[in-house]
Amino acid sequence: MPALDLQQSSVDITRAICDIPSVSGEETPLADAIFAALGEYPHLEVIRDGDTIVARTNLGRAQRVAIAGHIDTVPINANLPTRFVDVDGEPHLWGRGTVDMKAGTAVQLKLAAELTDPRVDITWMWYDHEEVAADLNGLARLARHRPDLFAADFAILGEPSDGQVEGGCNGTLRAIVRTTGMRAHSARAWMGENAIHRAAPILARLADHRPREIVVDGLAYREGLNAVRIEGGVAGNVIPDRCEVEVNYRFAPSRTPEEAVAYVRDVLDGFEIEVVDLSAGARPGLDAPLAQEFVAAVGAEPRPKYGWTDVARFSALGVPAVNYGPGDPSLAHHDEERVPLAQITAVEQGLRSWLSAP
Amino acid sequence: MPALDLQQSSVDITRAICDIPSVSGEETPLADAIFAALGEYPHLEVIRDGDTIVARTNLGRAQRVAIAGHIDTVPINANLPTRFVDVDGEPHLWGRGTVDMKAGTAVQLKLAAELTDPRVDITWMWYDHEEVAADLNGLARLARHRPDLFAADFAILGEPSDGQVEGGCNGTLRAIVRTTGMRAHSARAWMGENAIHRAAPILARLADHRPREIVVDGLAYREGLNAVRIEGGVAGNVIPDRCEVEVNYRFAPSRTPEEAVAYVRDVLDGFEIEVVDLSAGARPGLDAPLAQEFVAAVGAEPRPKYGWTDVARFSALGVPAVNYGPGDPSLAHHDEERVPLAQITAVEQGLRSWLSAP
Repeated sequence: MPALDLQQSSVDITRAICDIPSVSGEETPLADAIFAALGEYPHLEVIRDGDTIVARTNLGRAQRVAIAGHIDTVPINANLPTRFVDVDGEPHLWGRGTVDMKAGTAVQLKLAAELTDPRVDITWMWYDHEEVAADLNGLARLARHRPDLFAADFAILGEPSDGQVEGGCNGTLRAIVRTTGMRAHSARAWMGENAIHRAAPILARLADHRPREIVVDGLAYREGLNAVRIEGGVAGNVIPDRCEVEVNYRFAPSRTPEEAVAYVRDVLDGFEIEVVDLSAGARPGLDAPLAQEFVAAVGAEPRPKYGWTDVARFSALGVPAVNYGPGDPSLAHHDEERVPLAQITAVEQGLRSWLSAP
Repeated sequence: MPALDLQQSSVDITRAICDIPSVSGEETPLADAIFAALGEYPHLEVIRDGDTIVARTNLGRAQRVAIAGHIDTVPINANLPTRFVDVDGEPHLWGRGTVDMKAGTAVQLKLAAELTDPRVDITWMWYDHEEVAADLNGLARLARHRPDLFAADFAILGEPSDGQVEGGCNGTLRAIVRTTGMRAHSARAWMGENAIHRAAPILARLADHRPREIVVDGLAYREGLNAVRIEGGVAGNVIPDRCEVEVNYRFAPSRTPEEAVAYVRDVLDGFEIEVVDLSAGARPGLDAPLAQEFVAAVGAEPRPKYGWTDVARFSALGVPAVNYGPGDPSLAHHDEERVPLAQITAVEQGLRSWLSAP
């Protein structure tokens, strides 16, 4: 088992945990290393559930904050081991996981080891299987096995947010929109009914759709309604009797999932629609007193998070949650994934100053 | 090898050759049976090229007619062996191949054996691989190996035409119409460009397109322009950067293939188009004197053939050609494929009376 030294700098911890590959499903070596490293710190109660590790202080503080990060990555694509690179004169760490989201996790590990006397009690959570199907998600599994561990007044998820605070997240809905017709030989097309032609208004309405921007708790969430897949056809000489358009609707956290379904049904009125995936968004929760203190302490301008993240799981449990981590989210999953070293230390400094304040 | 008796009735020969399965690629047992049966008839010169059998008279007649049929079928779908059924009180032979086109081939085999003294010389052709890719087609292969065998003044293809004479055939073109865009995470759709949305005008133009009817040599050919396949998409959370629509254009035989390409490019102007398949149609050729005599003799009202058939191969070689065979073409490839017995004997009688006339 590779040993992990949490006394190193957060940059060096980032590099160390990136160089222990942990593609979803293969997190055990990294989880083992984290679990072993945390054993050195008697101020932490360490709990393990599969490859999810929880470490918490029990100082009897008036408030508790949950701070979480996932330890898995999407597949490696010749971008490990990490290396240091300069981009526009600025030093970066390059490689799989540097952005999504081992730099954020590294900062959390360092602070977990170091902050023996924080101003609030802290429940640190590092979990597996974030990058794959929701039913495998380690944080969701932990919530089923140990819901008690989620008792908190505020939560911070270390997902990449460019070192800014990104509040809440949009919800997401996927649906299959179907047309049907009647097969016929394409030499006698008038004897059939073309299901692909019948999908024309679906694409036209999606192309013409102007997504809304909705302000929620002071942050403007940009929505999106898109075809992400289309499929139809039987053979090169057959009028097709079936066409499927899969649409993805990203909806502002002020809408309920039911409202999101109604909206899609309204835009695509007249078509058969089957909802196949539906996750509520999360309101930014920036009106919570702890959230306001946090934003003030780290000196960041809050922004909306567009992508769905596990902040929604905290939100669903009634815990206001934000994203705060190093790295440009648009480089997540990218083959040239890389994080500016200065953002790693800035996020470390931001979290440290807030958690240590008297 | 199953023995084939050409002294039976044409209905019994139909049944016998249907019950020797011959899905494309597996024609050898049937070709063997036909080849052996023809050996009994010294008035025929019999030639074999793979699983294609040619039998011809060499009587020194002033004119020669080619009469052809394919011996393969589309796959069997629990519709063999054949059986006799009544439909609306009318006796039918039911099963794979009865319509497309072993009834037509059976009539030809019977007459080849029987007509020792026809008014014209006859080149009978029974060929393999009609139901699959054009480059496997037995008639096309024979034209490459023995172009001399195609010398004729008129040709009759026994494809199902409901016992009527169907002249010529429409041409067919298949093309891929492509749109491109730019991938992005669907949570930040505005950073990408949706290639599926860009296909909206393609489907709208196809749905709005009104196919023309074009009179060629007195027969009205109905055209058709249809999407037969559509495909696009990367993943449920990615804005797609590519969409493909496969279109099939069936065009009247008065248009050249080049004109057909220009027409599709005009209808779908502004889109990237790749032609992947293009076959000229065949004019009905009913102005040829032999064709006029034939139509008069069989007492049929000529109609246009919509589907592409091998008459186009004769037409391309300068031989006017028509389709004349028993069976409803809309039941070809159908699981309930079945032919009225009366049509088999009527087509036999039609061909016999014309070929035997003094």
